Amino acid sequence: MSLRGVLRLGEIAIRVLDIEKSREHYDKRMGLKEVLVDDKGRVYFKAWDEHDHHSLVLRETDQAGMDYFAFKVYDDQTLTNLEPKIRAFGLDVTHAAAGEYPESGRRLIFVLPSGHTMHLYAEMEQTGNTLGTHNPGVLPDEGVIRGFRINRMDHCLLGGVNIDDNVRLFREVFGFDLSEKIIDAETGISLAVFLSCSTTPHDVAFVLQPEPNRFHHVSYLLESETDVIHAADLIGKYRISVDVGPNRHGVTRGATIYFFDPSGNRNEVFSGGYLHYPDTPTLVWDTNELGPATFSQDNIVRESFLNVLT
Amino acid sequence: MSLRGVLRLGEIAIRVLDIEKSREHYDKRMGLKEVLVDDKGRVYFKAWDEHDHHSLVLRETDQAGMDYFAFKVYDDQTLTNLEPKIRAFGLDVTHAAAGEYPESGRRLIFVLPSGHTMHLYAEMEQTGNTLGTHNPGVLPDEGVIRGFRINRMDHCLLGGVNIDDNVRLFREVFGFDLSEKIIDAETGISLAVFLSCSTTPHDVAFVLQPEPNRFHHVSYLLESETDVIHAADLIGKYRISVDVGPNRHGVTRGATIYFFDPSGNRNEVFSGGYLHYPDTPTLVWDTNELGPATFSQDNIVRESFLNVLT
Amino acid sequence: MSLRGVLRLGEIAIRVLDIEKSREHYDKRMGLKEVLVDDKGRVYFKAWDEHDHHSLVLRETDQAGMDYFAFKVYDDQTLTNLEPKIRAFGLDVTHAAAGEYPESGRRLIFVLPSGHTMHLYAEMEQTGNTLGTHNPGVLPDEGVIRGFRINRMDHCLLGGVNIDDNVRLFREVFGFDLSEKIIDAETGISLAVFLSCSTTPHDVAFVLQPEPNRFHHVSYLLESETDVIHAADLIGKYRISVDVGPNRHGVTRGATIYFFDPSGNRNEVFSGGYLHYPDTPTLVWDTNELGPATFSQDNIVRESFLNVLT
Amino acid sequence: MSLRGVLRLGEIAIRVLDIEKSREHYDKRMGLKEVLVDDKGRVYFKAWDEHDHHSLVLRETDQAGMDYFAFKVYDDQTLTNLEPKIRAFGLDVTHAAAGEYPESGRRLIFVLPSGHTMHLYAEMEQTGNTLGTHNPGVLPDEGVIRGFRINRMDHCLLGGVNIDDNVRLFREVFGFDLSEKIIDAETGISLAVFLSCSTTPHDVAFVLQPEPNRFHHVSYLLESETDVIHAADLIGKYRISVDVGPNRHGVTRGATIYFFDPSGNRNEVFSGGYLHYPDTPTLVWDTNELGPATFSQDNIVRESFLNVLT
Repeated sequence: MSLRGVLRLGEIAIRVLDIEKSREHYDKRMGLKEVLVDDKGRVYFKAWDEHDHHSLVLRETDQAGMDYFAFKVYDDQTLTNLEPKIRAFGLDVTHAAAGEYPESGRRLIFVLPSGHTMHLYAEMEQTGNTLGTHNPGVLPDEGVIRGFRINRMDHCLLGGVNIDDNVRLFREVFGFDLSEKIIDAETGISLAVFLSCSTTPHDVAFVLQPEPNRFHHVSYLLESETDVIHAADLIGKYRISVDVGPNRHGVTRGATIYFFDPSGNRNEVFSGGYLHYPDTPTLVWDTNELGPATFSQDNIVRESFLNVLT
Repeated sequence: MSLRGVLRLGEIAIRVLDIEKSREHYDKRMGLKEVLVDDKGRVYFKAWDEHDHHSLVLRETDQAGMDYFAFKVYDDQTLTNLEPKIRAFGLDVTHAAAGEYPESGRRLIFVLPSGHTMHLYAEMEQTGNTLGTHNPGVLPDEGVIRGFRINRMDHCLLGGVNIDDNVRLFREVFGFDLSEKIIDAETGISLAVFLSCSTTPHDVAFVLQPEPNRFHHVSYLLESETDVIHAADLIGKYRISVDVGPNRHGVTRGATIYFFDPSGNRNEVFSGGYLHYPDTPTLVWDTNELGPATFSQDNIVRESFLNVLT
Repeated sequence: MSLRGVLRLGEIAIRVLDIEKSREHYDKRMGLKEVLVDDKGRVYFKAWDEHDHHSLVLRETDQAGMDYFAFKVYDDQTLTNLEPKIRAFGLDVTHAAAGEYPESGRRLIFVLPSGHTMHLYAEMEQTGNTLGTHNPGVLPDEGVIRGFRINRMDHCLLGGVNIDDNVRLFREVFGFDLSEKIIDAETGISLAVFLSCSTTPHDVAFVLQPEPNRFHHVSYLLESETDVIHAADLIGKYRISVDVGPNRHGVTRGATIYFFDPSGNRNEVFSGGYLHYPDTPTLVWDTNELGPATFSQDNIVRESFLNVLT
Repeated sequence: MSLRGVLRLGEIAIRVLDIEKSREHYDKRMGLKEVLVDDKGRVYFKAWDEHDHHSLVLRETDQAGMDYFAFKVYDDQTLTNLEPKIRAFGLDVTHAAAGEYPESGRRLIFVLPSGHTMHLYAEMEQTGNTLGTHNPGVLPDEGVIRGFRINRMDHCLLGGVNIDDNVRLFREVFGFDLSEKIIDAETGISLAVFLSCSTTPHDVAFVLQPEPNRFHHVSYLLESETDVIHAADLIGKYRISVDVGPNRHGVTRGATIYFFDPSGNRNEVFSGGYLHYPDTPTLVWDTNELGPATFSQDNIVRESFLNVLT
C-alpha cells in the first residue's frame, strides 16, 4: 500500500582510475562526505540529507564504469517475496549475506537483461542527517552542506541492450511505472526508458546501447535551480570537465548540469521536475524531437551526451 | 509494490460564503483554472500541472469549512480491497456510484475518528496539463501558469478529535507513514500528526482540536522558494489577508505563506521540503520547541495559526 | 556630484530584416511593449520598469545591425558642456532638434573612433512604469511583466576598430570608468573593454574587430537568476536560436543567455554581477583565460560568440 | 561626470554592549570577516566583496547605537571642494588627519541637522575581495562566502529631527536624489526620506524621530532573494531576535529581513529593488498606505519597526 516494495536507488558502486583524485572530486569539490574505507580499499560517501550510512562506493581499478547499482526495498519480507518473481522472470539470483557489503543487510544480486548488475537490500545502518529526530530543526551546522550543496543521490542512467526487457522486469516484477520514453520516430524502437517507483519522474533509466552494462551517469538532487547555478559556478572554478549545461531536460523537466569525474564517469546535479504518480500518462518523445527531449533550452542534440559512456 | 494503493489528495470540497468572491480569489488571484459548474452550482478548479479534471470544489453556503477530502487510489481493485479493511477498523462505509461526483468513478465514503468525511476513488476523467503526452515540451503556453504559479494541490491539514486513531487508520489500513508529529512536552499527547503515502513529507495532517471536523488549510505546491516570494508579493498587492509568512516550517522544512480566502478558509502555498521514504525516521517535536516546529525562521508561536479553523 | 553627467544607455536603434517577425520576437516572445510606430515605419518598444517612453527602435531594411546607440545625460546643461569637449577630442558633432527623434529632446550626434554612431540626449517623454508615483506598490498588474520578465535595457556590446580611443573618450570626456578589460596575453593589446558610468559593471562595452561599426549585442536586465532560467525555458519553447547559455560571465559575473533575433542580431538577458564603483580596481583578463573570462561555468571559448556580429 | 563626488556608505561605527557576543553575531553568524582590533579595542569587519579594508567598526560601551557613519568620496579634491559648501550650509566641519582612523585617509567630520555625526573620506587601504584583479574568476574559495552570504554593506537608516534639512543638505551639497519619501497623509510632513547617490534606491535614509541622533539599522546586500531566505533560516537556527520578515518593502522594493544584534542594534539583509537614476521620479507614500510602504507582502504596520531605535 502507498509507497512500499522497492523504494529508491540506495547505493551505486563506481570504478575510478585514481582514488585520491576521486576523493578530491566527490568530497572536496562536490561536497559528499567520506564515511568509510573498507578493507578492500573501497571508499564510501554519503550526501548530507541521506539517513543511511552511505550511497556511493568508489573502487580503484584500471577501467571506469559501474560495478553495480542497488535499490533499497521496504523490508526483508519484500526481498523474500521478490526473489521467486525475479527467478520466474528468468534471471539468476545470487545472495550476499548481511555484512558482506559494509553496513548492509542481506542482498539479492542479479544481472539485468541490459547487462547491468543490480542489488536489492532491505537494511542499511542508519547514521542520520546530523539533525537528529527530536526537535531536529531545518538547517544542519555550517560546513555540513558544502560544495555543490547536494541533498541526496537521486537516480542513475545506464546504457545497455534489451532495454524493453528491463522495462518489463521493472514494471511487472518491481512495480515501477514507465514515466517517459524516447522512441525512434520511424521504427518506434525504445531508445531510452525512464522508470519511477515513487513520485520522482525517474528512479532509474536505461538508454539503448550496442554493448551491455555501460554507465551513463549518476545524478544528485539539489534544493533549487539557484543551487544548480551555484554548482555550475563551482564546476567552472575547479575546471571540472563539463558535458552539458546548465540546461533543462525535456524528459523529467529537471534543471541540470552534466560533468565528468576525473575517471571520465559522468555525474549530474539537478533540481526540479514534476511529480510523477502511477496515473500520470507516460510521456513519449520521438527522435524528431530529440533535441527538446534532451536539452530543452536550446534543443540541440549532443552526440557526446548520447554516446560517451563508461 | 512501489507507489501503489492510496496515491494522493485528489479532491477537496470547501464551503464558501460567496461564490463570486471565491472565484475571484481562487481563479483570478491564485491562478487556478475554473473547469466546471455543476447542476448544484458547485464550482470546480484545477491547477495547471494536474492531469485530472479538477482538484478543488467550492460550494456556496452560510458556513465556511470543508465538506470532505478525497484521496485517489491506484485502481478499482484497491477500493475493493480497502472497503472491508475500513469496515474492520470500525468505520461505516457508504458508496457513491460512478458519475455521482462529476467526472469521478465510484467512491467509498466514511467518517474518520477525527470527524472528517473522507472519500476514496480510483477514477477521474483526465484532461491533462495542456502539454500533451507526445513530445510534450516543458512549458505550457503563456497564460496557463498565472497568479501564484501553482503547480498542484499537495495536502490538507485538518483539526479534530481522536487524531491518534486517525494515525492508526492511515498507517494500518491505508499504508501511510507517520513522517512527523508534535507532542505535548509534558504528557506526550499527540497534538499534530503528519502522514505521508509518497515521497512528500506529508499528504495529509491532523491537529488536535476540542471539536471534530474542523478545517485548518489546503496547501498548494509551487515550483520554488522564489515563487513563494512572488506569491507573497501578489498576496500583498491584492490585500489578501495573511495569516503567517513568508516563513519556513520546522515540520516538513517547506517555505510557506498562509493566507485566507474571502470566507476565512486558510490556504497555503509552499515550496521545498525533504523527500520522505518509509525508512525515514519519524521526526518528533515537542511543545518546548513549538515555535521552531511551526515557523523556524523566527521561532514565534502564532496563536491564530494554532486556533483559527473553519 | 554623485550620479550626474552621462547616465545610462537610453535608446538603441536596431536594423531588422522583417518587422513583423521582429515584433513577434521582441514583444510577444521577449515581452517588451510596443509603444509607437513612427511615420517612417520604425517601431518603438520599452521594458516595463523603464520610466522613459521607449528604449528600443527597430527599423526594417535589408541588413541587420545597429544604426546608433544613445545615452541619456542628466540635463540639457550637460549636453552644452559636453559638446565642446567632444569636439576637442577630435570628433565632429551634429545636432538633432527636439522632436526630430520621437518623444526626445535635442541630441548631439557623433561617430566614435570605433565607427559607431552615438547620440546624447537629456530629455525623453516619461510615460512611467504603470505603478504611478504616489503609493505605487511593488508589482504591476498581471500581464505587464510577461515573456522573459525583462526589467530594463542595460547595456550594449559593440565591435569595431580603435577601441582604446573609445576608452579614452569615455573616460576623459564622459567620465566613465574602465571596469574590466580583456587583453592579448602576449601583446597586451586591448581586445575588449568594459565601461561603467554607474554602479553596474558596464553600461557599454567594445570588442576589437577588423571592421568598424559592428553590433555584438544589446542586453536586458532580469530580476534574478531564476528568471534567466525561465527566459531560457521560453527561448527553448519558441525555438529561438541560442548562441550561448545559460552560463555565467567571468567579466561582470552576470548570469546570462545569448540568443538571436530573427534577423541575426544578438540579444542577451542576464541577472546579477557585482556593484562597480569608481574606486573598484579595473579587472584585467588575458587570452590565456579567455574561456573563464567569457563563460566561467565551463571555460569554453566560443568562436561564434567572438566572431559573429551584425 | 557620471558616478563621481560622494560614492557610497563606506564605514559605520556601532556601539555594542558586549564585544564578544557581537563578534559571534557579526562574524560567526552573519559571516562578516574580522580584519582588525585597534589600540582602543574597536573591532573592524568587512564583507567579502568589498575592496576596502573594512566597513563596520564596533566599539564596546554601555549604550547601543551609532557613533558615526562615513561616506567615501571620489578623491581628495572632492573633500576640498565639499568643505566650504558644507560650511556654507551652516555646519561646523572638523578634521581628522590621515591615519587617525585606521587605514583611512583624512576626514571631514560634521553633525547633520538630524543630530548624526557624518564623516567624509576619500582614501582607505584596499585589501581586495580575495579574487585578485588579474584573471580574477567569479567565486572566491570555499569559506570566504559564509553565514548570511553577505556581499557588501549597502545603506543605513537613521532616526532624528529636521530630516527635511538633511534632504536639502544631501541634495544641494552632496548631489543626492530623493528617491522616495513617506509623508503624513494629512499634514504632508516628511516622515521618512530615502536618498540615493548611485543607481541603488537608497544609500542613506532618515526617519523623523522626536530625538536627534538615533540609529534604526544598517543594511547588507545579498545576492538573491533565495539568499534572503537562507539568511532567515540561519537567523532562526541561531535564535537571533527577528524584528520583521522575510517580507518585501514597498519603498525600494527590496526583499528583506530585519533582526537585532545582541546589543539591540537593528540589522537588515536584503536583495533586489529597482535601479534608481536621477531622472527616476521621486516616489511618495503617505500614511494611509504606511503598511504597503513598509511591508508590502502583508501591508501590516509594525510599531516596533517604527519606534524601536538605538
